[in-house]
Amino acid sequence: MPPKAHAHVTQPDKVALLKRLSRVEGQVRGIAVMVQDDRYCVDILTQITAVRSALGSVAIELLRNHAEGCVANAIAQGKGQPAIDELITVVERLSR
Amino acid sequence: MPPKAHAHVTQPDKVALLKRLSRVEGQVRGIAVMVQDDRYCVDILTQITAVRSALGSVAIELLRNHAEGCVANAIAQGKGQPAIDELITVVERLSR
Amino acid sequence: MPPKAHAHVTQPDKVALLKRLSRVEGQVRGIAVMVQDDRYCVDILTQITAVRSALGSVAIELLRNHAEGCVANAIAQGKGQPAIDELITVVERLSR
Amino acid sequence: MPPKAHAHVTQPDKVALLKRLSRVEGQVRGIAVMVQDDRYCVDILTQITAVRSALGSVAIELLRNHAEGCVANAIAQGKGQPAIDELITVVERLSR
Repeated sequence: MPPKAHAHVTQPDKVALLKRLSRVEGQVRGIAVMVQDDRYCVDILTQITAVRSALGSVAIELLRNHAEGCVANAIAQGKGQPAIDELITVVERLSR
Repeated sequence: MPPKAHAHVTQPDKVALLKRLSRVEGQVRGIAVMVQDDRYCVDILTQITAVRSALGSVAIELLRNHAEGCVANAIAQGKGQPAIDELITVVERLSR
Repeated sequence: MPPKAHAHVTQPDKVALLKRLSRVEGQVRGIAVMVQDDRYCVDILTQITAVRSALGSVAIELLRNHAEGCVANAIAQGKGQPAIDELITVVERLSR
Repeated sequence: MPPKAHAHVTQPDKVALLKRLSRVEGQVRGIAVMVQDDRYCVDILTQITAVRSALGSVAIELLRNHAEGCVANAIAQGKGQPAIDELITVVERLSR
């Protein structure tokens, strides 16, 4: 993650997002414990699916904040094209 | 995660899996730090995509172990049908 | 597909999109022929993956047109919020 | 789709699969008509999501047939390893 020259963006629901990420971190640790404890593969896979889904929800939340904030501002300032290009690139990666 | 009556399964690449999960845990913590530091939304989303992809790889690895171990054993013992049903259910969840 | 009260939208790359969709239609017909001809499951699955990927590309193209057209216009007219809500809902469905 | 040296495989639910694929083909044609008629982008995207989901269900069905047929037979004949490798490769592509 090289530093980028982007302006800093405070997420409007920062505290809630941090709580969700902390929960995801705990879930990943829980998966490691399951592997450590030789738990049944399918149960571990179920947990991985849950974590991926939780991360997907966090991504949608960030995307919404990004569209309502950065992208909407850029469009209002007549600089919408690169902002939309970037947004679609992100969506393309997420939807794969 | 309620305990299940399944036999314990030691993953053949347990140490490597635990290392990968520990790395994923660190990546999730890194995402929280990015939110905390008001980093640019798109950079955070890029990291989330990376973590989801890493978890997908771990899932495929576990699935492979499961197919080669539990499922193959069940088929060899003439109990393949429920094992394959369960496998396909897991794949269905993963592919969504 | 019930008719909706939305304004009509001519896709800027309409001819190209129709060509791609016609090609996808042919691919789906090709998959049916493979099933008809008792072709090997894995070869059929490979073709299904290709069609899903082609449809994903068409979706990204439509999403880009939508963001650059309808959504950008709505934002410029101060009606950005519902347009962005709708956009994110679509992305959420696509990314699942 | 180059011809492969694989044995032919008759899908156990061939007629039902062909019906579903014929329906998917009609759905893709319907999407082209929507583009032709300048229908609203989001409505078209909703239909694309539906087709991708329908193709995903057909894929899961074929995967189930493949696991219960080809893969189970290979395992029973002591040739499970390459069959499972191939299965996991297919799942990896589907889950992306």
